[in-house]
Amino acid sequence: MAPLILDGKKTQRDISEGMRHFVNDHVKKGFVNPCLAIVQVGDDKASDSYIRNKKKFGESIGVQVLHIHLPKDISEAEVLTEIKSLNTDESVHGIILQLPLPRDLNKELLIEAIHHSKDVDGLTSKNVKGLWVGSDKSLVPATSRGILTLLKHYNIDVRGKKVVVIGRSALVGKPTAMLMLKENATVSICHSETPNIETYTLDADIIISAVGRPRFITSYHVRPGQIVIDVGITIDTMDKVCKGDVDFAEVAPIVKAISPVPGGVGPMTVLSLFQNLLDVYTKKVIQL
Amino acid sequence: MAPLILDGKKTQRDISEGMRHFVNDHVKKGFVNPCLAIVQVGDDKASDSYIRNKKKFGESIGVQVLHIHLPKDISEAEVLTEIKSLNTDESVHGIILQLPLPRDLNKELLIEAIHHSKDVDGLTSKNVKGLWVGSDKSLVPATSRGILTLLKHYNIDVRGKKVVVIGRSALVGKPTAMLMLKENATVSICHSETPNIETYTLDADIIISAVGRPRFITSYHVRPGQIVIDVGITIDTMDKVCKGDVDFAEVAPIVKAISPVPGGVGPMTVLSLFQNLLDVYTKKVIQL
Repeated sequence: MAPLILDGKKTQRDISEGMRHFVNDHVKKGFVNPCLAIVQVGDDKASDSYIRNKKKFGESIGVQVLHIHLPKDISEAEVLTEIKSLNTDESVHGIILQLPLPRDLNKELLIEAIHHSKDVDGLTSKNVKGLWVGSDKSLVPATSRGILTLLKHYNIDVRGKKVVVIGRSALVGKPTAMLMLKENATVSICHSETPNIETYTLDADIIISAVGRPRFITSYHVRPGQIVIDVGITIDTMDKVCKGDVDFAEVAPIVKAISPVPGGVGPMTVLSLFQNLLDVYTKKVIQL
Repeated sequence: MAPLILDGKKTQRDISEGMRHFVNDHVKKGFVNPCLAIVQVGDDKASDSYIRNKKKFGESIGVQVLHIHLPKDISEAEVLTEIKSLNTDESVHGIILQLPLPRDLNKELLIEAIHHSKDVDGLTSKNVKGLWVGSDKSLVPATSRGILTLLKHYNIDVRGKKVVVIGRSALVGKPTAMLMLKENATVSICHSETPNIETYTLDADIIISAVGRPRFITSYHVRPGQIVIDVGITIDTMDKVCKGDVDFAEVAPIVKAISPVPGGVGPMTVLSLFQNLLDVYTKKVIQL
Protein backbone atom coordinates (compact mmCIF):
# COMPACT_ATOMS: atom_id res chain seq x y z
CA MET A 1 0.00 0.00 0.00
CA ALA A 2 1.26 3.48 -0.77
CA PRO A 3 2.21 5.36 2.40
CA LEU A 4 0.72 8.64 3.47
CA ILE A 5 3.10 11.36 2.23
CA LEU A 6 3.60 14.04 4.88
CA ASP A 7 3.71 16.85 2.37
CA GLY A 8 5.54 19.85 3.82
CA LYS A 9 4.95 22.00 0.78
CA LYS A 10 1.20 21.51 0.84
CA THR A 11 1.09 21.95 4.64
CA GLN A 12 3.07 25.15 4.29
CA ARG A 13 0.55 26.40 1.75
CA ASP A 14 -2.45 25.38 3.89
CA ILE A 15 -1.19 27.08 7.03
CA SER A 16 0.41 30.12 5.39
CA GLU A 17 -2.96 31.06 3.93
CA GLY A 18 -4.22 31.86 7.42
CA MET A 19 -1.02 33.70 8.27
CA ARG A 20 -1.37 35.88 5.17
CA HIS A 21 -4.92 36.82 6.18
CA PHE A 22 -3.80 37.50 9.71
CA VAL A 23 -1.04 39.87 8.60
CA ASN A 24 -3.28 41.53 6.07
CA ASP A 25 -5.99 42.16 8.68
CA HIS A 26 -3.52 43.66 11.10
CA VAL A 27 -1.96 45.95 8.54
CA LYS A 28 -5.41 47.06 7.40
CA LYS A 29 -6.25 47.95 10.99
CA GLY A 30 -3.21 50.20 11.01
CA PHE A 31 -0.69 48.02 12.82
CA VAL A 32 2.88 47.95 11.53
CA ASN A 33 4.00 45.14 9.22
CA PRO A 34 5.65 42.23 10.95
CA CYS A 35 9.35 42.45 10.19
CA LEU A 36 12.12 39.85 10.24
CA ALA A 37 15.78 40.91 10.10
CA ILE A 38 18.24 38.37 8.71
CA VAL A 39 21.86 39.17 9.50
CA GLN A 40 24.30 37.47 7.13
CA VAL A 41 28.05 37.83 7.47
CA GLY A 42 30.17 37.04 4.43
CA ASP A 43 29.10 34.78 1.60
CA ASP A 44 27.99 31.21 1.66
CA LYS A 45 26.15 29.66 -1.26
CA ALA A 46 23.84 27.53 0.86
CA SER A 47 23.04 30.53 3.09
CA ASP A 48 22.22 32.66 0.03
CA SER A 49 19.68 30.11 -1.05
CA TYR A 50 18.16 29.69 2.44
CA ILE A 51 17.84 33.45 2.80
CA ARG A 52 16.19 33.72 -0.61
CA ASN A 53 13.64 31.10 0.46
CA LYS A 54 12.88 32.87 3.72
CA LYS A 55 12.54 36.23 2.00
CA LYS A 56 10.25 34.83 -0.67
CA PHE A 57 8.02 33.04 1.82
CA GLY A 58 7.94 35.98 4.25
CA GLU A 59 6.93 38.43 1.56
CA SER A 60 4.26 36.03 0.31
CA ILE A 61 2.44 36.41 3.63
CA GLY A 62 3.05 40.15 3.91
CA VAL A 63 6.03 40.10 6.27
CA GLN A 64 8.83 42.55 5.64
CA VAL A 65 12.17 40.72 5.46
CA LEU A 66 15.29 42.84 5.93
CA HIS A 67 18.41 41.16 4.62
CA ILE A 68 21.36 42.78 6.36
CA HIS A 69 24.38 41.58 4.48
CA LEU A 70 27.66 42.39 6.24
CA PRO A 71 31.11 41.94 4.71
CA LYS A 72 33.06 38.84 5.74
CA ASP A 73 35.96 40.83 7.27
CA ILE A 74 33.70 42.83 9.60
CA SER A 75 34.75 42.83 13.27
CA GLU A 76 32.81 41.03 15.98
CA ALA A 77 32.18 44.36 17.69
CA GLU A 78 30.55 45.74 14.57
CA VAL A 79 28.25 42.71 14.24
CA LEU A 80 27.37 43.15 17.91
CA THR A 81 26.50 46.79 17.34
CA GLU A 82 24.26 45.79 14.46
CA ILE A 83 22.45 43.15 16.54
CA LYS A 84 22.00 45.54 19.46
CA SER A 85 20.52 48.17 17.22
CA LEU A 86 18.03 45.60 15.87
CA ASN A 87 17.19 44.59 19.46
CA THR A 88 16.04 48.11 20.24
CA ASP A 89 14.43 48.81 16.87
CA GLU A 90 10.68 48.58 17.57
CA SER A 91 9.85 48.00 13.91
CA VAL A 92 11.86 44.75 13.94
CA HIS A 93 10.08 41.77 15.52
CA GLY A 94 12.50 38.94 14.89
CA ILE A 95 16.24 38.62 14.34
CA ILE A 96 18.10 35.74 12.72
CA LEU A 97 21.84 35.39 12.58
CA GLN A 98 22.34 33.27 9.49
CA LEU A 99 24.78 30.43 10.13
CA PRO A 100 27.51 29.49 9.39
CA LEU A 101 29.56 32.57 10.27
CA PRO A 102 33.13 33.26 9.11
CA ARG A 103 35.45 31.27 11.35
CA ASP A 104 36.93 34.05 13.45
CA LEU A 105 33.59 35.27 14.77
CA ASN A 106 32.34 33.95 18.11
CA LYS A 107 29.04 32.34 17.17
CA GLU A 108 27.81 31.77 20.74
CA LEU A 109 28.57 35.32 21.80
CA LEU A 110 26.75 36.78 18.81
CA ILE A 111 23.72 34.52 19.21
CA GLU A 112 23.48 35.42 22.89
CA ALA A 113 23.50 39.09 21.91
CA ILE A 114 20.11 38.68 20.25
CA HIS A 115 17.39 39.67 22.70
CA HIS A 116 15.54 36.48 23.64
CA SER A 117 12.17 38.04 22.86
CA LYS A 118 13.26 38.50 19.21
CA ASP A 119 15.21 35.25 18.94
CA VAL A 120 12.93 33.55 16.39
CA ASP A 121 15.50 30.78 15.84
CA GLY A 122 15.15 29.82 19.54
CA LEU A 123 18.91 29.57 20.08
CA THR A 124 19.57 31.89 23.02
CA SER A 125 20.04 30.52 26.55
CA LYS A 126 16.71 31.88 27.72
CA ASN A 127 14.79 30.11 24.97
CA VAL A 128 16.75 26.89 25.42
CA LYS A 129 15.88 26.93 29.10
CA GLY A 130 12.28 27.82 28.27
CA LEU A 131 11.94 24.64 26.19
CA TRP A 132 13.86 22.73 28.89
CA VAL A 133 11.42 23.70 31.63
CA GLY A 134 8.45 23.24 29.29
CA SER A 135 7.41 26.88 29.11
CA ASP A 136 4.78 27.80 26.54
CA LYS A 137 6.21 31.27 26.10
CA SER A 138 9.62 30.44 24.73
CA LEU A 139 10.59 30.43 21.07
CA VAL A 140 11.23 26.89 19.81
CA PRO A 141 13.76 26.24 17.01
CA ALA A 142 11.88 26.31 13.69
CA THR A 143 12.82 22.82 12.50
CA SER A 144 11.50 21.23 15.69
CA ARG A 145 8.33 23.27 15.64
CA GLY A 146 7.95 22.44 11.94
CA ILE A 147 8.15 18.70 12.60
CA LEU A 148 5.47 18.88 15.28
CA THR A 149 3.27 21.08 13.11
CA LEU A 150 3.59 18.65 10.21
CA LEU A 151 2.58 15.72 12.41
CA LYS A 152 -0.36 17.65 13.87
CA HIS A 153 -1.51 18.75 10.42
CA TYR A 154 -1.88 15.07 9.52
CA ASN A 155 -3.62 14.34 12.85
CA ILE A 156 -0.74 12.27 14.15
CA ASP A 157 -0.78 12.49 17.93
CA VAL A 158 2.59 11.98 19.63
CA ARG A 159 1.27 11.64 23.20
CA GLY A 160 2.30 8.32 24.68
CA LYS A 161 4.11 7.35 21.47
CA LYS A 162 7.60 5.92 21.20
CA VAL A 163 9.63 8.55 19.38
CA VAL A 164 13.20 7.91 18.32
CA VAL A 165 15.27 10.97 17.43
CA ILE A 166 18.50 10.20 15.60
CA GLY A 167 21.04 12.97 16.03
CA ARG A 168 21.85 14.99 19.13
CA SER A 169 22.70 18.41 17.71
CA ALA A 170 21.79 21.52 19.68
CA LEU A 171 20.11 22.88 16.55
CA VAL A 172 17.81 19.99 15.70
CA GLY A 173 18.16 16.71 17.62
CA LYS A 174 18.00 18.01 21.19
CA PRO A 175 15.25 20.63 20.74
CA THR A 176 13.16 18.11 18.79
CA ALA A 177 13.58 15.56 21.57
CA MET A 178 12.61 18.14 24.21
CA LEU A 179 9.59 19.29 22.22
CA MET A 180 8.37 15.71 21.74
CA LEU A 181 8.87 15.14 25.46
CA LYS A 182 6.82 18.23 26.22
CA GLU A 183 4.09 16.73 24.00
CA ASN A 184 4.17 13.63 26.21
CA ALA A 185 5.95 11.28 23.85
CA THR A 186 8.54 8.88 25.27
CA VAL A 187 11.75 9.90 23.59
CA SER A 188 14.95 8.01 22.81
CA ILE A 189 17.93 9.91 21.45
CA CYS A 190 20.30 7.90 19.26
CA HIS A 191 23.54 9.09 17.67
CA SER A 192 26.82 8.06 16.11
CA GLU A 193 27.82 6.12 19.24
CA THR A 194 24.61 4.07 19.39
CA PRO A 195 25.31 0.44 18.50
CA ASN A 196 22.63 -1.47 16.54
CA ILE A 197 20.52 1.59 15.93
CA GLU A 198 17.90 -0.65 14.25
CA THR A 199 16.91 -2.02 17.67
CA TYR A 200 15.67 1.49 18.42
CA THR A 201 14.17 2.35 15.06
CA LEU A 202 12.31 -0.95 14.70
CA ASP A 203 10.76 -0.46 18.12
CA ALA A 204 9.59 3.13 17.48
CA ASP A 205 6.20 4.49 16.52
CA ILE A 206 7.79 7.62 15.06
CA ILE A 207 11.35 7.86 13.67
CA ILE A 208 12.87 11.32 13.29
CA SER A 209 16.21 11.21 11.51
CA ALA A 210 18.48 14.26 11.66
CA VAL A 211 21.85 12.84 10.72
CA GLY A 212 22.75 14.38 7.36
CA ARG A 213 23.84 11.18 5.65
CA PRO A 214 21.99 9.84 2.62
CA ARG A 215 20.68 6.26 2.88
CA PHE A 216 21.21 6.27 6.66
CA ILE A 217 17.72 4.81 7.10
CA THR A 218 16.92 1.89 4.82
CA SER A 219 14.39 -0.92 4.68
CA TYR A 220 16.52 -2.64 7.30
CA HIS A 221 15.53 -0.02 9.91
CA VAL A 222 11.76 0.15 9.48
CA ARG A 223 8.60 -1.92 9.72
CA PRO A 224 4.96 -1.47 8.71
CA GLY A 225 2.86 1.00 10.68
CA GLN A 226 5.63 3.48 11.41
CA ILE A 227 5.85 7.22 10.79
CA VAL A 228 9.16 8.44 9.38
CA ILE A 229 10.26 12.07 9.46
CA ASP A 230 13.35 12.85 7.41
CA VAL A 231 15.22 15.93 8.62
CA GLY A 232 18.47 15.16 6.84
CA ILE A 233 19.72 17.49 4.16
CA THR A 234 22.72 16.55 2.10
CA ILE A 235 23.40 18.54 -1.04
CA ASP A 236 24.74 16.24 -3.70
CA THR A 237 27.05 18.65 -5.52
CA MET A 238 27.46 16.31 -8.48
CA ASP A 239 23.77 15.83 -9.18
CA LYS A 240 22.82 19.19 -7.62
CA VAL A 241 19.99 17.50 -5.73
CA CYS A 242 19.10 17.62 -2.08
CA LYS A 243 18.96 14.24 -0.35
CA GLY A 244 17.49 13.19 2.98
CA ASP A 245 18.69 10.55 5.45
CA VAL A 246 16.03 8.09 4.36
CA ASP A 247 16.18 5.89 1.29
CA PHE A 248 12.72 6.93 0.22
CA ALA A 249 12.31 4.38 -2.57
CA GLU A 250 13.09 1.54 -0.18
CA VAL A 251 11.37 2.81 2.97
CA ALA A 252 8.18 4.41 1.61
CA PRO A 253 6.53 1.13 0.50
CA ILE A 254 6.97 -0.34 3.98
CA VAL A 255 5.88 2.39 6.40
CA LYS A 256 2.56 4.05 7.17
CA ALA A 257 3.63 7.67 6.62
CA ILE A 258 6.79 9.44 5.51
CA SER A 259 8.00 12.98 4.86
CA PRO A 260 9.97 13.37 1.63
CA VAL A 261 13.15 15.36 0.97
CA PRO A 262 12.82 17.82 -0.62
CA GLY A 263 9.30 18.96 0.20
CA GLY A 264 8.99 17.66 3.76
CA VAL A 265 10.59 19.25 6.80
CA GLY A 266 12.34 21.97 4.74
CA PRO A 267 9.22 24.01 3.89
CA MET A 268 7.95 23.38 7.44
CA THR A 269 11.08 24.98 8.89
CA VAL A 270 10.52 28.13 6.86
CA LEU A 271 6.85 28.16 7.86
CA SER A 272 7.62 27.73 11.56
CA LEU A 273 10.20 30.47 11.54
CA PHE A 274 7.44 32.85 10.49
CA GLN A 275 5.01 31.31 12.99
CA ASN A 276 7.61 32.21 15.62
CA LEU A 277 7.82 35.71 14.17
CA LEU A 278 4.05 36.16 14.30
CA ASP A 279 4.04 34.90 17.90
CA VAL A 280 6.45 37.69 18.76
CA TYR A 281 4.43 40.18 16.71
CA THR A 282 1.17 39.19 18.36
CA LYS A 283 2.52 39.52 21.84
CA LYS A 284 3.79 42.96 20.87
CA VAL A 285 0.41 43.93 19.49
CA ILE A 286 -1.23 42.78 22.71
CA GLN A 287 1.31 44.66 24.79
CA LEU A 288 0.76 47.96 23.03
CA MET B 1 24.40 -13.63 43.80
CA ALA B 2 24.55 -10.47 45.83
CA PRO B 3 24.66 -7.37 43.64
CA LEU B 4 27.38 -4.77 43.70
CA ILE B 5 26.16 -1.99 46.00
CA LEU B 6 26.95 1.43 44.55
CA ASP B 7 27.75 2.96 47.89
CA GLY B 8 27.37 6.74 47.75
CA LYS B 9 28.51 7.24 51.30
CA LYS B 10 31.75 5.39 50.77
CA THR B 11 32.31 7.07 47.41
CA GLN B 12 31.72 10.44 49.02
CA ARG B 13 34.34 9.61 51.64
CA ASP B 14 36.86 8.34 49.07
CA ILE B 15 36.59 11.39 46.83
CA SER B 16 36.19 14.00 49.56
CA GLU B 17 39.54 12.96 51.01
CA GLY B 18 41.26 14.39 47.93
CA MET B 19 39.11 17.51 48.06
CA ARG B 20 40.05 18.12 51.69
CA HIS B 21 43.74 17.90 50.82
CA PHE B 22 43.23 20.17 47.85
CA VAL B 23 41.54 22.86 49.93
CA ASN B 24 44.06 22.49 52.73
CA ASP B 25 46.98 22.90 50.31
CA HIS B 26 45.49 26.00 48.78
CA VAL B 27 44.76 27.63 52.10
CA LYS B 28 48.28 26.83 53.30
CA LYS B 29 49.65 28.53 50.20
CA GLY B 30 47.76 31.63 51.21
CA PHE B 31 44.72 31.41 48.95
CA VAL B 32 41.33 32.29 50.41
CA ASN B 33 39.04 29.54 51.65
CA PRO B 34 36.51 28.31 49.13
CA CYS B 35 33.13 29.65 50.19
CA LEU B 36 29.57 28.56 49.43
CA ALA B 37 26.63 30.81 50.21
CA ILE B 38 23.27 29.14 50.78
CA VAL B 39 20.33 31.50 50.62
CA GLN B 40 17.25 30.18 52.37
CA VAL B 41 13.96 32.05 52.48
CA GLY B 42 11.49 31.12 55.18
CA ASP B 43 11.38 27.78 56.90
CA ASP B 44 11.01 24.34 55.49
CA LYS B 45 11.87 21.26 57.51
CA ALA B 46 13.33 19.31 54.61
CA SER B 47 15.40 22.34 53.56
CA ASP B 48 16.75 22.73 57.09
CA SER B 49 18.01 19.18 57.01
CA TYR B 50 19.50 19.51 53.49
CA ILE B 51 21.30 22.69 54.48
CA ARG B 52 22.67 21.07 57.63
CA ASN B 53 24.05 18.22 55.49
CA LYS B 54 25.70 20.59 53.06
CA LYS B 55 27.18 22.70 55.83
CA LYS B 56 28.54 19.67 57.62
CA PHE B 57 30.08 18.17 54.52
CA GLY B 58 31.50 21.49 53.28
CA GLU B 59 33.14 22.23 56.60
CA SER B 60 34.58 18.70 56.71
CA ILE B 61 36.64 19.52 53.61
CA GLY B 62 37.57 23.02 54.71
CA VAL B 63 34.98 24.97 52.75
CA GLN B 64 33.30 27.90 54.42
CA VAL B 65 29.52 27.61 54.21
CA LEU B 66 27.50 30.77 54.76
CA HIS B 67 23.90 30.11 55.62
CA ILE B 68 21.96 33.24 54.78
CA HIS B 69 18.57 32.74 56.33
CA LEU B 70 16.02 35.32 55.22
CA PRO B 71 12.54 35.73 56.76
CA LYS B 72 9.62 34.25 54.83
CA ASP B 73 7.87 37.59 54.33
CA ILE B 74 10.89 39.25 52.70
CA SER B 75 10.21 40.99 49.38
CA GLU B 76 11.49 39.67 46.06
CA ALA B 77 13.51 42.86 45.63
CA GLU B 78 15.30 42.27 48.92
CA VAL B 79 16.20 38.69 47.97
CA LEU B 80 17.46 40.04 44.63
CA THR B 81 19.63 42.58 46.41
CA GLU B 82 21.09 39.81 48.58
CA ILE B 83 21.89 37.64 45.54
CA LYS B 84 23.45 40.53 43.67
CA SER B 85 25.66 41.38 46.57
CA LEU B 86 26.83 37.75 46.73
CA ASN B 87 27.49 37.84 42.97
CA THR B 88 29.98 40.66 43.40
CA ASP B 89 31.47 39.42 46.66
CA GLU B 90 34.87 38.01 45.65
CA SER B 91 35.14 35.89 48.78
CA VAL B 92 32.03 33.93 47.73
CA HIS B 93 32.61 31.27 45.05
CA GLY B 94 29.24 29.60 44.80
CA ILE B 95 25.63 30.58 45.48
CA ILE B 96 22.69 28.29 46.10
CA LEU B 97 19.11 29.39 46.39
CA GLN B 98 17.58 26.68 48.53
CA LEU B 99 14.29 25.46 47.09
CA PRO B 100 11.36 25.46 47.66
CA LEU B 101 10.74 29.18 48.09
CA PRO B 102 7.66 30.73 49.68
CA ARG B 103 4.93 30.78 47.05
CA ASP B 104 4.81 34.46 46.22
CA LEU B 105 8.46 34.67 45.18
CA ASN B 106 9.34 34.26 41.50
CA LYS B 107 11.67 31.27 41.55
CA GLU B 108 12.85 31.59 37.95
CA LEU B 109 13.62 35.27 38.30
CA LEU B 110 15.61 34.72 41.48
CA ILE B 111 17.56 31.76 40.07
CA GLU B 112 18.41 33.76 36.94
CA ALA B 113 19.74 36.53 39.18
CA ILE B 114 22.57 34.26 40.31
CA HIS B 115 25.64 34.91 38.18
CA HIS B 116 26.18 31.83 36.02
CA SER B 117 29.81 31.56 37.06
CA LYS B 118 28.70 31.06 40.70
CA ASP B 119 25.63 28.98 39.93
CA VAL B 120 26.86 25.72 41.51
CA ASP B 121 23.38 24.19 41.21
CA GLY B 122 23.60 24.56 37.42
CA LEU B 123 20.10 26.01 37.12
CA THR B 124 20.62 29.29 35.25
CA SER B 125 19.93 29.57 31.51
CA LYS B 126 23.61 29.83 30.65
CA ASN B 127 24.47 26.61 32.44
CA VAL B 128 21.44 24.80 31.02
CA LYS B 129 22.53 25.83 27.53
CA GLY B 130 26.11 24.87 28.34
CA LEU B 131 25.04 21.31 29.13
CA TRP B 132 22.75 21.39 26.09
CA VAL B 133 25.57 22.26 23.68
CA GLY B 134 27.92 19.86 25.48
CA SER B 135 30.29 22.48 26.88
CA ASP B 136 32.89 21.31 29.39
CA LYS B 137 32.89 24.65 31.15
CA SER B 138 29.34 24.78 32.39
CA LEU B 139 28.15 23.84 35.86
CA VAL B 140 26.08 20.64 35.81
CA PRO B 141 23.30 20.09 38.39
CA ALA B 142 24.79 18.22 41.34
CA THR B 143 22.49 15.20 41.28
CA SER B 144 23.30 14.47 37.64
CA ARG B 145 27.01 14.95 38.18
CA GLY B 146 26.77 12.79 41.29
CA ILE B 147 25.18 9.91 39.36
CA LEU B 148 27.91 9.99 36.73
CA THR B 149 30.62 10.22 39.37
CA LEU B 150 29.16 7.24 41.23
CA LEU B 151 29.12 5.14 38.04
CA LYS B 152 32.67 6.16 37.17
CA HIS B 153 33.89 5.41 40.67
CA TYR B 154 32.73 1.83 40.16
CA ASN B 155 34.29 1.74 36.67
CA ILE B 156 30.94 1.55 34.95
CA ASP B 157 31.33 3.07 31.49
CA VAL B 158 28.18 4.58 29.99
CA ARG B 159 29.51 5.05 26.44
CA GLY B 160 27.37 3.15 23.95
CA LYS B 161 25.11 1.89 26.74
CA LYS B 162 21.34 1.95 26.74
CA VAL B 163 20.36 4.31 29.52
CA VAL B 164 16.75 4.79 30.55
CA VAL B 165 15.98 7.87 32.63
CA ILE B 166 12.58 7.81 34.31
CA GLY B 167 11.35 11.31 35.10
CA ARG B 168 11.65 14.47 33.01
CA SER B 169 12.08 17.19 35.61
CA ALA B 170 14.29 20.17 34.81
CA LEU B 171 16.12 19.55 38.10
CA VAL B 172 17.05 15.89 37.67
CA GLY B 173 15.59 13.95 34.73
CA LYS B 174 16.53 16.25 31.87
CA PRO B 175 20.03 17.24 33.02
CA THR B 176 20.81 13.58 33.77
CA ALA B 177 19.62 12.58 30.30
CA MET B 178 21.74 15.33 28.70
CA LEU B 179 24.81 14.42 30.73
CA MET B 180 24.50 10.73 29.80
CA LEU B 181 24.08 11.78 26.17
CA LYS B 182 27.24 13.88 26.40
CA GLU B 183 28.99 10.76 27.72
CA ASN B 184 27.86 8.94 24.57
CA ALA B 185 25.13 6.80 26.07
CA THR B 186 21.93 6.30 24.09
CA VAL B 187 19.25 7.81 26.26
CA SER B 188 15.52 7.18 26.55
CA ILE B 189 13.44 9.46 28.72
CA CYS B 190 10.30 7.89 30.22
CA HIS B 191 7.68 9.59 32.36
CA SER B 192 4.15 9.45 33.70
CA GLU B 193 2.70 9.32 30.16
CA THR B 194 4.85 6.38 29.04
CA PRO B 195 2.72 3.27 28.63
CA ASN B 196 4.28 -0.10 29.56
CA ILE B 197 7.39 1.44 31.07
CA GLU B 198 8.77 -2.08 31.63
CA THR B 199 9.41 -2.42 27.89
CA TYR B 200 11.98 0.35 28.35
CA THR B 201 13.44 -0.71 31.68
CA LEU B 202 13.83 -4.36 30.69
CA ASP B 203 15.70 -3.34 27.56
CA ALA B 204 18.12 -0.97 29.36
CA ASP B 205 21.70 -1.48 30.48
CA ILE B 206 21.34 1.26 33.08
CA ILE B 207 18.08 2.36 34.73
CA ILE B 208 18.01 5.74 36.44
CA SER B 209 14.76 6.32 38.31
CA ALA B 210 13.89 9.85 39.43
CA VAL B 211 10.18 9.63 40.05
CA GLY B 212 9.70 10.08 43.77
CA ARG B 213 7.32 7.19 44.32
CA PRO B 214 8.26 4.23 46.53
CA ARG B 215 8.08 0.79 44.91
CA PHE B 216 7.88 2.35 41.44
CA ILE B 217 10.56 -0.09 40.24
CA THR B 218 9.96 -3.69 41.27
CA SER B 219 11.18 -7.12 40.20
CA TYR B 220 8.75 -6.81 37.29
CA HIS B 221 10.89 -4.03 35.73
CA VAL B 222 14.38 -5.51 35.90
CA ARG B 223 16.48 -8.44 34.69
CA PRO B 224 19.92 -9.83 35.53
CA GLY B 225 22.96 -7.85 34.41
CA GLN B 226 21.45 -4.40 34.83
CA ILE B 227 22.66 -1.37 36.76
CA VAL B 228 20.00 0.46 38.77
CA ILE B 229 20.41 3.99 40.08
CA ASP B 230 17.74 5.12 42.49
CA VAL B 231 17.33 8.90 42.61
CA GLY B 232 13.90 8.89 44.22
CA ILE B 233 13.46 10.38 47.65
CA THR B 234 10.19 10.03 49.48
CA ILE B 235 10.09 10.86 53.13
CA ASP B 236 7.78 8.51 54.90
CA THR B 237 6.46 10.79 57.60
CA MET B 238 4.94 7.93 59.56
CA ASP B 239 8.07 5.83 59.77
CA LYS B 240 10.40 8.86 59.44
CA VAL B 241 12.47 6.99 56.88
CA CYS B 242 13.60 8.03 53.46
CA LYS B 243 12.53 5.73 50.64
CA GLY B 244 13.73 5.44 47.06
CA ASP B 245 11.78 4.55 43.90
CA VAL B 246 13.19 1.04 43.85
CA ASP B 247 11.94 -1.86 45.91
CA PHE B 248 15.46 -2.70 47.02
CA ALA B 249 14.62 -6.03 48.70
CA GLU B 250 12.97 -7.27 45.50
CA VAL B 251 15.29 -5.76 42.89
CA ALA B 252 18.73 -6.11 44.47
CA PRO B 253 18.88 -9.94 44.24
CA ILE B 254 18.17 -9.77 40.48
CA VAL B 255 20.43 -7.03 39.14
CA LYS B 256 24.18 -6.64 38.76
CA ALA B 257 24.56 -3.36 40.64
CA ILE B 258 22.27 -1.01 42.55
CA SER B 259 22.49 2.22 44.51
CA PRO B 260 20.60 2.18 47.81
CA VAL B 261 18.40 4.85 49.38
CA PRO B 262 19.56 6.27 51.68
CA GLY B 263 23.29 6.16 51.09
CA GLY B 264 23.37 6.21 47.28
CA VAL B 265 22.72 9.26 45.15
CA GLY B 266 22.02 11.50 48.16
CA PRO B 267 25.61 11.72 49.45
CA MET B 268 26.81 11.96 45.83
CA THR B 269 24.65 15.05 45.28
CA VAL B 270 26.24 16.78 48.25
CA LEU B 271 29.70 15.73 47.06
CA SER B 272 29.11 17.00 43.52
CA LEU B 273 27.80 20.31 44.71
CA PHE B 274 31.18 20.88 46.34
CA GLN B 275 32.99 19.53 43.27
CA ASN B 276 31.17 22.24 41.34
CA LEU B 277 32.22 24.76 43.96
CA LEU B 278 35.86 23.73 43.72
CA ASP B 279 35.66 23.95 39.92
CA VAL B 280 34.59 27.56 40.29
CA TYR B 281 37.25 28.15 42.93
CA THR B 282 40.01 26.64 40.80
CA LYS B 283 39.14 28.65 37.75
CA LYS B 284 39.19 31.71 39.96
CA VAL B 285 42.57 30.77 41.34
CA ILE B 286 43.84 30.30 37.79
CA GLN B 287 42.39 33.61 36.71
CA LEU B 288 44.03 35.56 39.51
